[in-house]
Amino acid sequence: MPARLAARLKEYRKEMPALSPVLDHIDTHLDDSLERLFALLRIQSISTDPDYAAECRKAAEWLVAELKTIGFDASVRDTSGHPMVVAHHAGPSADSPHVLFYGHYDVQPVDPIELWDNPPFDPAVREIEPGRKVITGRGSSDDKGQLMLFVEACRAFKAEHGQLPCRVTILFEGEEESGSPSLKPFLEANREELKADFALVCDTDMFDAQTPSICASLRGLVGVEVTVKAASRDLHSGMYGGPAANPIRILAGILADIHDENGQVTIPGFYDGVEETPSQVLQSWQTLGVTPESFLGPIGLSVPAGEKGRSVLEMVWARPTAEFNGITGGYTGKGFKTVIAAEVSAKISFRLVHKQDPAKIAEAFQKFVRDRLPADCAVEFHPHGGSPAIQLSYDAPFLTSAKQALSEEWPKPAVTIGGGGSIPIVGDFRTYLGMESLLVGFALSDDRIHSPNEKYELNSFHRGQRSWARILDALSR
Amino acid sequence: MPARLAARLKEYRKEMPALSPVLDHIDTHLDDSLERLFALLRIQSISTDPDYAAECRKAAEWLVAELKTIGFDASVRDTSGHPMVVAHHAGPSADSPHVLFYGHYDVQPVDPIELWDNPPFDPAVREIEPGRKVITGRGSSDDKGQLMLFVEACRAFKAEHGQLPCRVTILFEGEEESGSPSLKPFLEANREELKADFALVCDTDMFDAQTPSICASLRGLVGVEVTVKAASRDLHSGMYGGPAANPIRILAGILADIHDENGQVTIPGFYDGVEETPSQVLQSWQTLGVTPESFLGPIGLSVPAGEKGRSVLEMVWARPTAEFNGITGGYTGKGFKTVIAAEVSAKISFRLVHKQDPAKIAEAFQKFVRDRLPADCAVEFHPHGGSPAIQLSYDAPFLTSAKQALSEEWPKPAVTIGGGGSIPIVGDFRTYLGMESLLVGFALSDDRIHSPNEKYELNSFHRGQRSWARILDALSR
Repeated sequence: MPARLAARLKEYRKEMPALSPVLDHIDTHLDDSLERLFALLRIQSISTDPDYAAECRKAAEWLVAELKTIGFDASVRDTSGHPMVVAHHAGPSADSPHVLFYGHYDVQPVDPIELWDNPPFDPAVREIEPGRKVITGRGSSDDKGQLMLFVEACRAFKAEHGQLPCRVTILFEGEEESGSPSLKPFLEANREELKADFALVCDTDMFDAQTPSICASLRGLVGVEVTVKAASRDLHSGMYGGPAANPIRILAGILADIHDENGQVTIPGFYDGVEETPSQVLQSWQTLGVTPESFLGPIGLSVPAGEKGRSVLEMVWARPTAEFNGITGGYTGKGFKTVIAAEVSAKISFRLVHKQDPAKIAEAFQKFVRDRLPADCAVEFHPHGGSPAIQLSYDAPFLTSAKQALSEEWPKPAVTIGGGGSIPIVGDFRTYLGMESLLVGFALSDDRIHSPNEKYELNSFHRGQRSWARILDALSR
Repeated sequence: MPARLAARLKEYRKEMPALSPVLDHIDTHLDDSLERLFALLRIQSISTDPDYAAECRKAAEWLVAELKTIGFDASVRDTSGHPMVVAHHAGPSADSPHVLFYGHYDVQPVDPIELWDNPPFDPAVREIEPGRKVITGRGSSDDKGQLMLFVEACRAFKAEHGQLPCRVTILFEGEEESGSPSLKPFLEANREELKADFALVCDTDMFDAQTPSICASLRGLVGVEVTVKAASRDLHSGMYGGPAANPIRILAGILADIHDENGQVTIPGFYDGVEETPSQVLQSWQTLGVTPESFLGPIGLSVPAGEKGRSVLEMVWARPTAEFNGITGGYTGKGFKTVIAAEVSAKISFRLVHKQDPAKIAEAFQKFVRDRLPADCAVEFHPHGGSPAIQLSYDAPFLTSAKQALSEEWPKPAVTIGGGGSIPIVGDFRTYLGMESLLVGFALSDDRIHSPNEKYELNSFHRGQRSWARILDALSR
C-alpha cells in the first residue's frame, strides 16, 4: 500500500466512532435492553389470526416509538395487511456505507397452548441448566429477539457517539409468518427509499452455541406435480392385469430413473450452472465435526442418501437435489382392491444451487418424463413455481469483514455456511432492490420456533448485540 | 378296442336316455320355461340389503318347489345369513356319474333405479335389434337366467325319460353378491352330502354370441401391502434434502426393479411352477381374432404392457403378473409441501397361474424388498391373503366331452379359455370338497350385470338349456 493511502486510511479510521465504549455500553445496559425486549414480547402480534390485527399494529407502533428515541426517522406504513415499519438514520457522511436491516415483528400462533411451561406472552429469563439462561416466550427467537439485537446495537452507538457508523435503513414487516403478501408490492413501490448497498437479514441460526455463522448461500427450488394417465378408467386387475399399462409402474420407473447409483440426478442438463465449492470452503466445513451420524442420528437415520463422495454438509449447503414430496394413486384405503388405476400423481421438487435455472430444469424434467412414457399413455404437469439459488461470493468484502467481526466476539471463529432451504426475502431483495443480503443470526436450532416453549439464549441476546455493533463497525471501515 | 368291450359299450349307450327328444322338449316348451324364469326374476332377492331378506327366502322356497316338481329331493337350508337350496336327484344307477351344479339366486341392488329403461323386477322379452331378443331384468343374466338353464334341462330329461342321465346334486346360494359369508362353513359342514365327481359352475360368459366357451383356468392371487419407513418424522426438504433417505425414492426404485425391460417379473423364483401353455391351446386362442387394439381399445390403450412375445389373451389367461394397485406417501393434498416423508405404502398383488405357490411368492417378494432396502430404513409387510391358481388339464375327459357337446349346439366350435381373475367358489370346491369345476356359462360381456338394464340373450336362454342337456348327456356316457 502506498504510504500516502495508508496515512489517509489511518486518518479516516481515527474519525470513526470507537467500538469499545459501544461494547461497554451494551454490557452495562443489558437489563434495560432486556426490559425493552420484554415489552415487545408482551405484544401478541400473531399475524395469521385476524383477531390479533390490533396487536400487530401495536407492535409496529411500539417499534417506531423505540426507533425514534434513537434518532431514527421512523414511521408506520400501512399496507393492505399488517403495517410495515420503515426507519432511516443518517451516517457520518452522505457517502457512508448504507445498509438495510430486515426483520419481522409478527409471531406464530401459540397453539397448543397447554404445552407451554410458561405463558407465551409473559416473557422471563429462566436458568435451564447451571450457567445457562434463556429468555422464554413466543417471538423471543423468531424474530423479535433477533431484530432487537440490531436496534440495541444502534442505540449503544448513538448513546456513546451521538451517531451511527454508517447509514442505516430498517424494514420490519408484520406478515412474515403469514406468507408476506404485502412485501413484494411494498418493495416495488418503495424501491428508491429502501435501496441500500446491501441488506442485513437476521432470522438465521448460529452453527452452534459457540460458533457464529454467516449464511452465504440458499438453495433455490422448483416444484412440479406430475400425473401419469393410462387407461380411461380404473380396471379390474384380473381382467386386464398383464396387457393393460399400469400408471404406478410407469411412474415408479420414471422416478427410479431420476437418480443413478451414485445418487446423482440423471436428467440431462440438470447440473448446468452447478459449480464446485472452493476447496478451502469445503475444508472449513470439514472442521465443523459434522458426521453422517451426528447429522442424521437425531432423525433416526445414519446412511447419507445423497451424491457419493460428498459430505452431508456439502449435500445440504451446496448441492442440488431431486426430491419426491408426495405420491398417490390407485386404491389407498383400508384393506385391498385389485384395481389398476387410471392415473397416479407425484409432487416432485428440485433444490437448486449456484446458477441452475429453474425454468430450464422444469422443462428438462418434462422431457425426461415424456421420453419414458409409453405411446398410449398421457402425462400432465402442474408447475408449482420456482426460484433460483442465492450464492454470495465466499470472499465478498462485506462477508469477510462481518466474519472477522463475529470471530472477535465469540469463543470460536465464525464459519461461512450454506442454507438448504430458501428465505424468500433474500430473493426479493435481489429481484426488487438489486441488493445482496448478509445473513447473520444468533438463534439456535433448539429454540423451538413455531412450537410451544420458544426460547432465546440470553447469551445470544447479549453477544448478539455486541456482534451487530462489531459488524456495523467493521462494515463501515 | 376289443370287440367284446365295444359291444358292451354299445349296449350301455343304448340304455342311456336318448338326447333328441329332450332337445325337442326344450324347443317346444320354451315359453313355459320363460314364464318360470320370469316368476323367479320377479322376486326381489337382493342379498346385500337386509330389507330384502324375506324376498331372498322366497326365492329359495320358490326354487325348492320347482325342483320338487322335477323329482328332486330339495330343501331350504338355513344359515346365519340367507338360506341355501340343496337338491338331490338319483341317476340311472347308484354308480352313475355324479355332478354338483352351483348357482346363486341372489341379485345385486338396482340403484341407480332411474337409469333403467324398464322396471328391474318386471321382466320382459324385448327385441333390441331385428332378430335379436333379450330378456330384461335384474338377475336375468347374473345368475337366475343362467341357473334356470340347468333346471330346465333336467326338467326336459325327466319329462321325456322319467329320469336324469346321471346323479345330480344342486347347490344354490343366496349370498354370492354379498361375499358368500355362509358358504365355506356350509361346505365344511355338509361335505359328504355335497361331494360329487366334479362341479358345474354356471356364472361365466361365452367368448362371444356365436362361440360357447369353457373356462379351464383361473388366475390365483396374492396381495401384500408394503410400507417403507425412513426418518423418524417428516422432514423439511430444504434442511434434509440430499443426505436424508427419501422413502418414495426407495420404494419407486424397488417397484421399478420388479419388471425387466421385457415385462417379466424379476423376483427370484417367481416363475417356479409356471408352465408353458400347450401350443395347440395357444393356436386356438389365436383363431379368436383378439388383437391388442380390440382388447385394449375400449379402455383407451393400445400397447400391451405385459411380457413381450405373448398375445394379450395369453397374458390374461395364462401368465402371472405383478400389479401395483395403490400407492400413497408424503404430501398428497392441494398445492405443494416440500416435505420428505417418513414413510410410503404400496398395495401390490400378484396374479398367479398353474402351480405358483402364493406363500412362496409372498416370501420371495419380501426378500426382494429387504435386499434393496438401505441399512437405516425399515419395512413392514401386511399380507392380504392368497389363493393358488386353478388349472384344469386342457385334455381332461369331462372338459373334452363338454366341449364337444357345446360345439354341436352352437354356430361356432367351443373354445377353451382362461379366466384372468378368481372365482372363489371354484377354489372352495377344491379346498372343501376335493372337486374340480367345469365352468360353462352363456352370459355375454355386454349383459350389464350389476348395472342398470341387465339383460340376457333369449338365444342364450334357449340354446343354453339345450347345451346343458347335451353336456349332461355327454358327461354321462
